[in-house]
Amino acid sequence: MHPLDPLTPGEIAKVATIIKKDFQGKSLNFRVITLKEPPKSEMVSFLQAEHLNRASASCPARIARVQVNSRGESGSNELIEILVNIDSQSVIGTEHLIGKHSYIDSAYMQAVEKACRADPRIDAEIQKLKLPPGATVVIEAWAYATDGMNDMNERTTMCWFYMRLIDSADANYYAYPLELCAEVSEKLEVTKIYHLPSSEEETTREDAKPYDNCKIHSTEMSEYHPSLRPPPRTTTKPYQVIQPEGPSFQVDGNHISWEKWTMRVGFNYREGLTLHDIRYDGRNLFYRLSLSEMFVPYGDPRSPYPRKAAFDLGNDGAGINANNLQLGCDCLGLIKYFDGWHNTAAGEPLKLPNVVCCHEQDDGILWKHTNHRTQNVAVTRSRILVLQTIITVSNYEYIFAFHFSQDASIHYEVRATGILSTAPINIGDKVSCGTVVAPGVLAPYHQHLFSLRIDPAIDGTANSLQIEETKAMPVNDPVIHNPLGVGYTSESKIVTEEGGHDLDHTKNRSFKIINENHINPITGTPVGFKLLPCYSQLLLAHKDSYHARRSEFGQHAVWVTRYQDDELFSAGRHTMQSLGGEGIASAIEARKNEGASDVRNEDIVVWHTFGSTHNPRIEDWPVMPSEKMIVGLKPVNFFTGNPGLDVAVSTQEKNQSVLVGREGGSVAGSSPCCRL
Amino acid sequence: MHPLDPLTPGEIAKVATIIKKDFQGKSLNFRVITLKEPPKSEMVSFLQAEHLNRASASCPARIARVQVNSRGESGSNELIEILVNIDSQSVIGTEHLIGKHSYIDSAYMQAVEKACRADPRIDAEIQKLKLPPGATVVIEAWAYATDGMNDMNERTTMCWFYMRLIDSADANYYAYPLELCAEVSEKLEVTKIYHLPSSEEETTREDAKPYDNCKIHSTEMSEYHPSLRPPPRTTTKPYQVIQPEGPSFQVDGNHISWEKWTMRVGFNYREGLTLHDIRYDGRNLFYRLSLSEMFVPYGDPRSPYPRKAAFDLGNDGAGINANNLQLGCDCLGLIKYFDGWHNTAAGEPLKLPNVVCCHEQDDGILWKHTNHRTQNVAVTRSRILVLQTIITVSNYEYIFAFHFSQDASIHYEVRATGILSTAPINIGDKVSCGTVVAPGVLAPYHQHLFSLRIDPAIDGTANSLQIEETKAMPVNDPVIHNPLGVGYTSESKIVTEEGGHDLDHTKNRSFKIINENHINPITGTPVGFKLLPCYSQLLLAHKDSYHARRSEFGQHAVWVTRYQDDELFSAGRHTMQSLGGEGIASAIEARKNEGASDVRNEDIVVWHTFGSTHNPRIEDWPVMPSEKMIVGLKPVNFFTGNPGLDVAVSTQEKNQSVLVGREGGSVAGSSPCCRL
Repeated sequence: MHPLDPLTPGEIAKVATIIKKDFQGKSLNFRVITLKEPPKSEMVSFLQAEHLNRASASCPARIARVQVNSRGESGSNELIEILVNIDSQSVIGTEHLIGKHSYIDSAYMQAVEKACRADPRIDAEIQKLKLPPGATVVIEAWAYATDGMNDMNERTTMCWFYMRLIDSADANYYAYPLELCAEVSEKLEVTKIYHLPSSEEETTREDAKPYDNCKIHSTEMSEYHPSLRPPPRTTTKPYQVIQPEGPSFQVDGNHISWEKWTMRVGFNYREGLTLHDIRYDGRNLFYRLSLSEMFVPYGDPRSPYPRKAAFDLGNDGAGINANNLQLGCDCLGLIKYFDGWHNTAAGEPLKLPNVVCCHEQDDGILWKHTNHRTQNVAVTRSRILVLQTIITVSNYEYIFAFHFSQDASIHYEVRATGILSTAPINIGDKVSCGTVVAPGVLAPYHQHLFSLRIDPAIDGTANSLQIEETKAMPVNDPVIHNPLGVGYTSESKIVTEEGGHDLDHTKNRSFKIINENHINPITGTPVGFKLLPCYSQLLLAHKDSYHARRSEFGQHAVWVTRYQDDELFSAGRHTMQSLGGEGIASAIEARKNEGASDVRNEDIVVWHTFGSTHNPRIEDWPVMPSEKMIVGLKPVNFFTGNPGLDVAVSTQEKNQSVLVGREGGSVAGSSPCCRL
Repeated sequence: MHPLDPLTPGEIAKVATIIKKDFQGKSLNFRVITLKEPPKSEMVSFLQAEHLNRASASCPARIARVQVNSRGESGSNELIEILVNIDSQSVIGTEHLIGKHSYIDSAYMQAVEKACRADPRIDAEIQKLKLPPGATVVIEAWAYATDGMNDMNERTTMCWFYMRLIDSADANYYAYPLELCAEVSEKLEVTKIYHLPSSEEETTREDAKPYDNCKIHSTEMSEYHPSLRPPPRTTTKPYQVIQPEGPSFQVDGNHISWEKWTMRVGFNYREGLTLHDIRYDGRNLFYRLSLSEMFVPYGDPRSPYPRKAAFDLGNDGAGINANNLQLGCDCLGLIKYFDGWHNTAAGEPLKLPNVVCCHEQDDGILWKHTNHRTQNVAVTRSRILVLQTIITVSNYEYIFAFHFSQDASIHYEVRATGILSTAPINIGDKVSCGTVVAPGVLAPYHQHLFSLRIDPAIDGTANSLQIEETKAMPVNDPVIHNPLGVGYTSESKIVTEEGGHDLDHTKNRSFKIINENHINPITGTPVGFKLLPCYSQLLLAHKDSYHARRSEFGQHAVWVTRYQDDELFSAGRHTMQSLGGEGIASAIEARKNEGASDVRNEDIVVWHTFGSTHNPRIEDWPVMPSEKMIVGLKPVNFFTGNPGLDVAVSTQEKNQSVLVGREGGSVAGSSPCCRL
């Protein structure tokens, strides 16, 4: 067992038993039983010993972080966080999280939908809609995004209404949004019924309007599921990946080694896939890489749409919503799967199978040069290692993948796909904050803002953030020699205080994580890794809005903080119905007041905010082609040369490509190889 | 024969014969015999008829554009452009290009190197360097970049000096830059000898300095060629792509059809790979896509380094320098190669074999959705068609690839690799415009600026450029309803005049090419395609510098012009020793004065400037890992839904992935498939 390994099923069961003993007689709903990662101070010395193949002086204790909903005698639902030392089998801490809400409970959400559907007032409203014959109403429960209009102490759920017209549970009900909406209380009572606006000028209406049958359209336009569609195109011929000698990676438990890289795979209910102790050729690069949060605010100002704003990690959980990945579908080639473990409401271990896949991909050419004097060619292909997880959050899916390259770079690729969340609109109307994607179907504008947490360990934990810009040299300067006006140079400064920074491609502004204590012997500069940012518009919501106050990380593209154990979430620990003031900006502000915000040559964390302002295209309907966003981390004067220089040159003998002849048929591959 | 097909070898030979007849008695050096593409006015009606399977009323004439260097009686070297009608076998135009220089002639450059090496003054200077025993001097001739210091009428060549210390023609001589440089005249005479600066403060020196033997370093640090390196890593296991039923594309001559896409491949000495008449599902998208120019200015202000600034298309030619691509090396899987045809100096056809490769790649997931109610999954993998060409320009290579996707998007990927062009530096010194990558080896800062020419035909030739920005709605506005401050909207304007524009990710500024005459029946907005730009710093050289005046396209990220036949080159037709005033900005200025610069609902061309400010890392040495730059074109409200919706869902039966077991070994793939 490694200190960074997620809790095993045995540990989960043991922790539940310990807690049940402690809370005897109380009705407990186990929301979380997860590893509390050891303090970094302990881990750094443990890892140091581990990599030197020495026994560690001490092994960090296995601690579980547990959240339970406990229904007290008063009937109130209390959220409690408990820390359990698994080794000593004892509760070592208890925190009553007053006014906080646990992440979304899918069993509860189903109960909300059921209660809403069963309410006679809802039924009466549905009758007033005069839906077409054969219509089945589908209710989709969403966590309530704070808009200041509601009591914040009780859990509130918003119910959005859709219908399907064909007799299949896989019908795309988002194609038929209804002008109905309800608010449901913690105790499963319908507390408010809304009639949604159906034009730009309208806000919430008092009265129901019958459904406009002109909105009924062909299944061809709205269905994505193959069982409900005409036969697919048949032109795409099979494409297979073969690795006759097996994969180039080795997996030992949660430890992966591949092409000079080593790392550990972690997984938890909230962040999903996490990566730990990432090294290249034995050199320390990153202590931890993880998605910290993502926020999806909708841009429709008409009430109750400001309540559509999802924290997909804090509210939903990237781990608990991770897909069970299938061979030949979600990855191609030789695939190693990792399972995750969560817990049931009763505290039993719950297996989340195949939540992470690990495989290799060819990535085109790594480097090439032809000596024009000799015509001799040297060309190597690039192989990458992919660690991928896919999550479904209601209508949307996100595909998260870390790509490791032989040149010691890392890329984090996010793909957004799935179905647009829709709203009703009158036939013939337009609104300024959405796209009509089918008759009567509005796909509202929204943003996807991701927060990538980069916990660096560039040749050790004492790191600095350096901001570099490239500038033209002045002309006609008395000191600087630039007579012909072509000179340019770079200027850099080291960030000394915690805070947020922005991108500027016009200045070639780049963010480097450097170790000032390690100077590259050739370049004479500190060793470093550079962030290749994803240029994105930041949060559009007004700074005083709840959206902005709740998602502080959306204010800046790059944040740097001083490392704190357990400071993992840039929108705060508890995002469900949060009120703001709990995110990264607030944490920085608090530490500034304490005088503990120095980040130069310290253990730092860098957070990158990126994403997309998603003003839907009709091409995103009825299911959206993947939209890719890519962030990179690349060595800059860290090594003493190209780290991929020793990758063998490509040969036809190994790659076995096949020549396609004049008529498109394939011809046996006996063609010459790279000229050496 | 299609009017857009490049000239055949037979046509090239025929054209040379016609011209030789016309220029009897003159010594001709045939630089170019290439297709002059037909006027668009003729082509549009031809293509319309072709796609309706009707005979065209008329077939555009086959016209060749020829450039010859003709040595006149006075011994002067005149550049002449001649147009030949191949059908009528007659010269139809002759233009004497006074003061212009043809692109780089490799035979001439070899003669320059030889003449320079043979000059006794050069030999004397080399003696003064007191090179270590066994040193072989290598001279690299570069086209002279105008710096205002030289007579512009004569062809001038710069010779840079290096050495190699081991007995192999594949040794990396860039590892040993010498402090010597020479200028050679058109008549192969050494006209100037420079001693290069070797520290920040120095400029050109009068006297030679002996070579500092401390600069001699291990081959391990400086050699990239596998024959000169220790054995490579052996951990990378073979990875093969199999398409048991053959490729999904069909090729007929230069016509490709693949997954609803159709297009024609073109190729010429200057632009290399060009694409024509690109359609999806029969709908017209782009008339022509091509790389228009690329500029690589170096940022070292010390003379003579301002003379290092290469127009890799206009000076060198992406076609003439295209690599002969090899099976199993430059592409993987089932590969179709296209040959190019050029001409010898004598006017004979010259085959450029395998200059373009065409193959398919798996590109991860195209779209996916899991219905969380039924747990039913639908997932499709994305297949892309890649058309790739690779060029070597002295030290650097560029990999240019168009990627076509099943969702009707196009991506243009550029990878920069190869070897850094180096300069000498004293041991222990630093300069502000370069990185020391090995002892005594400076890799100067430089930029790579690409100009992608997009000639759209979005549902026809009458197109407009629309600039859209996304903005927060005001709060507390008397008219706009945005009480909670979360609303946002997009605003767009249509560009009416030719000109240049810049990127701004903070405003989500996007550039759409739309057809205002075709309104999407569902969204109610004009059909369009959107540019996904590559955010890059623009040209750093001062606007009055020769660099800036010669590379006008580097001033702005997006240009729009009115289509003109033959206006293909954003830095002008003739870039060799150009003086400025011939690029896109000048063309726009001229038309503004003529009142012919309206671009709304006209036949327009959009040009995207992108690239990298390449301040070298030591990891780019001795051969640079590919640096990727990607530009995209994506439908926006062009179709009536996801164009990739009919791609079949993935199945293990077709994809044949293999499960990797607990110990890393592979296990037979009998795992379940996607749940339908």
